[in-house]
Amino acid sequence: MLNHLGLVDALRAFRDGHVSPGDYLVACHDAARARSDLSAFTVLAADPAPGDGAWEGIPVGVKDIIATADMPTTNGSPVYADHVPAADAWIVARLKSLGASVLGKTVSTEFAWRHPGPTHNPWRRGHTPGGSSSGSAAAVAAGIVPLALGTQTFGSVIRPAAYCGVVGLKPSYGAIPRVGVHPLASSLDHVGLFTRSVTDAAFALARLIGRDEADLHGRPLPGFSIDLDTGLPPREAPRLALVQTTIWDRAEPEQRALLDSATTAFRTAGAHVSNLVLPAAFEVLWDCARTLLAVEASVCFGSLVERFPDRTSQPLKDLVAEGARIPAVAYVEARRRQADLRADLDRVLAGYDAVLTLPAAGPAPEGLASTGDPAFCVPWTCLGVPAVALPAGESRGLPLGIQLVGTYRNDLALLRTARWCETVLARPITFPAS
Amino acid sequence: MLNHLGLVDALRAFRDGHVSPGDYLVACHDAARARSDLSAFTVLAADPAPGDGAWEGIPVGVKDIIATADMPTTNGSPVYADHVPAADAWIVARLKSLGASVLGKTVSTEFAWRHPGPTHNPWRRGHTPGGSSSGSAAAVAAGIVPLALGTQTFGSVIRPAAYCGVVGLKPSYGAIPRVGVHPLASSLDHVGLFTRSVTDAAFALARLIGRDEADLHGRPLPGFSIDLDTGLPPREAPRLALVQTTIWDRAEPEQRALLDSATTAFRTAGAHVSNLVLPAAFEVLWDCARTLLAVEASVCFGSLVERFPDRTSQPLKDLVAEGARIPAVAYVEARRRQADLRADLDRVLAGYDAVLTLPAAGPAPEGLASTGDPAFCVPWTCLGVPAVALPAGESRGLPLGIQLVGTYRNDLALLRTARWCETVLARPITFPAS
Repeated sequence: MLNHLGLVDALRAFRDGHVSPGDYLVACHDAARARSDLSAFTVLAADPAPGDGAWEGIPVGVKDIIATADMPTTNGSPVYADHVPAADAWIVARLKSLGASVLGKTVSTEFAWRHPGPTHNPWRRGHTPGGSSSGSAAAVAAGIVPLALGTQTFGSVIRPAAYCGVVGLKPSYGAIPRVGVHPLASSLDHVGLFTRSVTDAAFALARLIGRDEADLHGRPLPGFSIDLDTGLPPREAPRLALVQTTIWDRAEPEQRALLDSATTAFRTAGAHVSNLVLPAAFEVLWDCARTLLAVEASVCFGSLVERFPDRTSQPLKDLVAEGARIPAVAYVEARRRQADLRADLDRVLAGYDAVLTLPAAGPAPEGLASTGDPAFCVPWTCLGVPAVALPAGESRGLPLGIQLVGTYRNDLALLRTARWCETVLARPITFPAS
Repeated sequence: MLNHLGLVDALRAFRDGHVSPGDYLVACHDAARARSDLSAFTVLAADPAPGDGAWEGIPVGVKDIIATADMPTTNGSPVYADHVPAADAWIVARLKSLGASVLGKTVSTEFAWRHPGPTHNPWRRGHTPGGSSSGSAAAVAAGIVPLALGTQTFGSVIRPAAYCGVVGLKPSYGAIPRVGVHPLASSLDHVGLFTRSVTDAAFALARLIGRDEADLHGRPLPGFSIDLDTGLPPREAPRLALVQTTIWDRAEPEQRALLDSATTAFRTAGAHVSNLVLPAAFEVLWDCARTLLAVEASVCFGSLVERFPDRTSQPLKDLVAEGARIPAVAYVEARRRQADLRADLDRVLAGYDAVLTLPAAGPAPEGLASTGDPAFCVPWTCLGVPAVALPAGESRGLPLGIQLVGTYRNDLALLRTARWCETVLARPITFPAS
């Protein structure tokens, strides 16, 4: 199963002449067609050709709210059913300049908000893959692509990664320019990655960070590089802050038990894991995020829902209406608190290498009508800090994960900690039966 | 009159041994005390000592909304009557690190909004010096200091500079960090400078631009330097866009006539001056600025006016109330338009070196109850583009100026154009009789 090779393994195999980029690309394309039952893609490249560059032969799944000039970009909405953008998004242009190939566009919920697409969880049909980056998570889990792009405004990378048993990386706010990515809420929107290993996520991020004058929000990430042979530099056992937020009672017993097991494993391997209660000020993060989301989405989609009442969903209309009722002073306060708490988190986490917490309430819920609850991701998204979802167990055949969170712009440090945790958990990469 | 030396002239005189820094400082201190009738300062340094550095002996007036750890900082408000900040503002620390001395704190309107202070226009007692940077403009005009700091949210540097017959420089948004400067409306607040020549303004700005993680808004300015002997590099006759905005009918005949004379002088000297009508989209700038101001001020002062109803002015209360009524979507729209129009202006001004326009409706109005109308500055402040007020004439003993405006972050280019204009106008630096 050539298509089961991860990003770094594939690139090494190309370099060493064990696999040809063209063969790998064909294997992945075949896998995509073989798993059309998952409905992970809105459109597949007809005959993907290897590009020109270091990533020649690497197929990437691109969430369908991210513009591609040579493929339709529906934004998960019937309003954009026939839309082909004039230009690639910044991140797509970057991928192409590396030589990667867009294998296809992956299913997104409507404008990355709630209204779901048709994608199934590869581990159990009829269960959601999570959202809004539904197709990207499913495609990486199913071994169709080694890398897929998602976006996260509330919990749209970390949650589907956990539901699908893959690595999800939401880098620091501002790490990857969002030019050409349909906005949902600019103060919260992040471009993120799905891979099957932490090393692959780190390797990809190292080449995908950047800056663009058209999307300068906050501070671009310092550059780093990951060697194809040595991967992430190893680190000593980390100090982890086990954070149970105020919504902990929403977590299912099996998800809590999974976190307990992981904690025990990390401690046994030498990590220092201690409970950390966030200062009470952090409790406003859910409200902050909701305010920012509703207001910014209201600006973004206000005229759209008016013009196309029959082609926009009730959840989108509700969000627009909610945002329209919020006073400006509440919005500005939310922005200020977001910035203040982001700075405060550095102090709160001094002496820790990362937060250890949950990515979701439990395994992927049954049904495709909802993509699940993002609440366990929301505070970290609002803070704009880097987060990694790591597969760590399963329940009744569905994956369960943990979430690791770092401090703002210290993405490489978080990835090194995540790599340490991944090694301790020592879970082989597996693939769902087709 | 040693204190009549400008910034660059003084530094050259120190270097060449013609004047001692200590003597200059004493002369300026004496001048400040001799002109206490102007009420330009809230507090003077008791016995200012030359600092240590290239600017040793240079006295600076610091607007009293800018924090000084060794002097009271009233913010123009009785609420802060006894307030001595814990730390210097970024810009004050920068000045001190250069060796400059804070001669005193200059009068500001209440929190840089409308409620005026007691400062008189040095050219005619009983006329406003303009505001909100009232004391800084007056102190530079009166020959007390060669350099003073102001701030501009609507028109608080350019307008008082014009009213007082000095050079005012509002650099690009983000050029000088505002850490330690009391906010009025963060999306609009700029730190600016008063000097008596364009060269002095450029020389000062070159050393005062910077960045600070605590106030990263937009893009810090590229660095440049101005040689003490050669000053600004000379340039050929510029191409000027004469912009009469939609509020042109508010301008007084003598102010319009002054602009006509200046235009003729520039043309005679070889400049290409042509009328430019801004696209209609730019007409929203006044509303945009008002929305940003009211909302952000409402957040900033909402609890203050509640806690201190007897020590806050009606204009401040009105502004808070106005901001509280604005919906968040209108605020976000205003932010978006501000950013879009800033980018658009680059295209609109392609082929021009600067905008030539008015800094105010006319000379300084009579009375101290109002500091005048900022409307002629508002669009350029909202755009965050660099602006220079240049003395260009007088009317009944009161100065009249012109305003030159550049494109975002091209401050040095604007200053070179302003220097060309200043040379053509060839007005000797004069001082009001005491």
